[in-house]
Amino acid sequence: MTTFEKNFTTEEYERRLAKTRAAMSKKGLDAIFVSDPSNMSWLTGYDGWSFYVFQGVILTLEGEPVWWGRAMDALGARRTVFMDGEDAIRGYDDTYVQNPDKHPMEDLAGLLGELGLEDKRIGVEMDNYYYSATAHECLKKKLSKATLKDVTGLVNWQRAVKSEREIEYMQRAARIVEAMHEQILEVAEPGMRKNDLIAEIYATGIRGAYGYWGDYPAIVPMAPSGLDATAPHLTWDDRPLEIGEATFFEIAGAHRRYQCPQSRTLFLGEVPQKYRDAEAAVLDAIEAGLEKAKPGNQAQDIANAFNATLNKAGFEKDSRCGYAIGISYPPDWGERTISFRRGDTSVLEPGMTFHFMPALWLDDGGLEITEPILITDDGHECLCSTPRELWVKG
Amino acid sequence: MTTFEKNFTTEEYERRLAKTRAAMSKKGLDAIFVSDPSNMSWLTGYDGWSFYVFQGVILTLEGEPVWWGRAMDALGARRTVFMDGEDAIRGYDDTYVQNPDKHPMEDLAGLLGELGLEDKRIGVEMDNYYYSATAHECLKKKLSKATLKDVTGLVNWQRAVKSEREIEYMQRAARIVEAMHEQILEVAEPGMRKNDLIAEIYATGIRGAYGYWGDYPAIVPMAPSGLDATAPHLTWDDRPLEIGEATFFEIAGAHRRYQCPQSRTLFLGEVPQKYRDAEAAVLDAIEAGLEKAKPGNQAQDIANAFNATLNKAGFEKDSRCGYAIGISYPPDWGERTISFRRGDTSVLEPGMTFHFMPALWLDDGGLEITEPILITDDGHECLCSTPRELWVKG
Repeated sequence: MTTFEKNFTTEEYERRLAKTRAAMSKKGLDAIFVSDPSNMSWLTGYDGWSFYVFQGVILTLEGEPVWWGRAMDALGARRTVFMDGEDAIRGYDDTYVQNPDKHPMEDLAGLLGELGLEDKRIGVEMDNYYYSATAHECLKKKLSKATLKDVTGLVNWQRAVKSEREIEYMQRAARIVEAMHEQILEVAEPGMRKNDLIAEIYATGIRGAYGYWGDYPAIVPMAPSGLDATAPHLTWDDRPLEIGEATFFEIAGAHRRYQCPQSRTLFLGEVPQKYRDAEAAVLDAIEAGLEKAKPGNQAQDIANAFNATLNKAGFEKDSRCGYAIGISYPPDWGERTISFRRGDTSVLEPGMTFHFMPALWLDDGGLEITEPILITDDGHECLCSTPRELWVKG
Repeated sequence: MTTFEKNFTTEEYERRLAKTRAAMSKKGLDAIFVSDPSNMSWLTGYDGWSFYVFQGVILTLEGEPVWWGRAMDALGARRTVFMDGEDAIRGYDDTYVQNPDKHPMEDLAGLLGELGLEDKRIGVEMDNYYYSATAHECLKKKLSKATLKDVTGLVNWQRAVKSEREIEYMQRAARIVEAMHEQILEVAEPGMRKNDLIAEIYATGIRGAYGYWGDYPAIVPMAPSGLDATAPHLTWDDRPLEIGEATFFEIAGAHRRYQCPQSRTLFLGEVPQKYRDAEAAVLDAIEAGLEKAKPGNQAQDIANAFNATLNKAGFEKDSRCGYAIGISYPPDWGERTISFRRGDTSVLEPGMTFHFMPALWLDDGGLEITEPILITDDGHECLCSTPRELWVKG
């Protein structure tokens, strides 16, 4: 939300549109309807917590994109998107909102018709959070002469290589997540209620760092302790931090919707040997993985090097160990394109950003030591300088 | 996340299942697959930030519900759901996650077959955030002998009347949002960066109040100022609070996933007459609406009384002015069932909870003064005691 200063220049949005249109043309599409909030924002600048109602961006092969959503959110669109045209923002009546008797897609079908697309080839993001099965059936029925094609991921893939300004925002988010981890290490102590610690994490993240304001992360802080940390996605309650338990902190700094996630693990009290062994194995495996993080290599090269090193030390991890990151909205801070795992042959390019996320779950806790990285011209750069080790206190 | 203390007794979950099964039987369904995280949690207790991958609860007419999701989240399910059975939790392989070559619904179809449902009538929530068009097509294809029926809202409607324990959690959330508003009034001042104020709001909300810990709200704090407040769903940046501007705070306290939203508006400096007029009109209209908030009346009665009073004072609001609230996960803290608007003939019952949300947008700002309410045996109760007025400072 920046009325006096847009997040990006109009030229940058135009470059994004051109890239996206090239991908559309390749697929023989006349238009796409984009409902992923991250894609909407990347294409137009739109920023608002309105994705709980149906909305999207219509992009044809020429002209300005069209923002479409609830009428009351059209005002927020006017304040955030780069487009100036009167017709670039179209709102639907409030009676369409969460009303079983009518569906917003009826309104969208009318608008697509008005734009001359009623018998055209239109791409829709069929496997997205904010495009439901009902939405698709309604649109298909109302636009019976059009051909609807699945373009899940089409815009996401255009986002993979970041611009200079995007990298700058991710670096600011990196400064913020560093500050969050510093604050954890500073204030966490035995007996502290978990929610009080989460409050500190949130406050630090949103105050920001080095004068860069903190935006909301696309996932809330995850900080399970002890046995709860054998499960990856539990959030928090008020149980106190205890001696003899590890707590992992899977958190992200965010700036202008750009996300920089990084995890660290804190052990309170004397560290059991198996945690030291796990730490040593993970640190070696991270080094092995990072060595493969360079242009021309494939995403799976990082995973394979990481896993081979981990296995040699007697540990196993059977889930992916990284994914692309950038601009994002809840419920996920990943880009849902490239994954670090066996079989992912995506080729790394300079300007791509990833969360290298080698979490290890043990029988009585979890260990997460992770690194957000940027692929550079001749290798990679870790976005954060947070000390890479198991933290110990108390 | 409560390993030593579940949020509800097994008996309460069993009452919920019985209610839901009655609704299923009425529709002639053999099973439902529920992917709305709020519904999953209400039916089983499951709590985790894992809804960015496909997951759900399968409920047949007998026996324990089955939690189904990503294998790594099965551990979190084991720690949060009320079911004990070994087969009540089923995880799918990590290679299904965000992989264009395979879809988790293939795994789900296999499980539904295993449960003897391959040729049965199965309800799915077709108009839900976490059930995509692709998910539906995949399931339809793999379960070609089954009949898939839309049950969007079926479980949500069972949630409308709250139990004693649920009301207790909402009252705790109410104490928390009161504390958040008190903190805003205490610390907000001209020149304060907006993100610093949001940091205070978050920290207060998560520390909680009266010893009740704060959970994450299903929507981030919205706090636009001045012209940005003419748009309802913008979030924040670092621009300072300014004399002569109104800022509205649309925030919620949360406890064990139960949400208590409440909004207030703060004006810095001398209040222009039109804000005083708007305040007077809204306060009168709230009173008029609340008079209709009692068992036996319809949801639209509140909206009609509110709007009639507002119109008499020369103001108009063309969007709904309230909605059902309770347990929730992002991206929405509403239950997506009953709305306070013309045409909604839902009958109010004791134990129902709503956010009466008469926001008013003016040409140069917004005014939100709202009340979360509980329908009682003979009327209603405001859940919060936050002073109902336009706040002024500076």
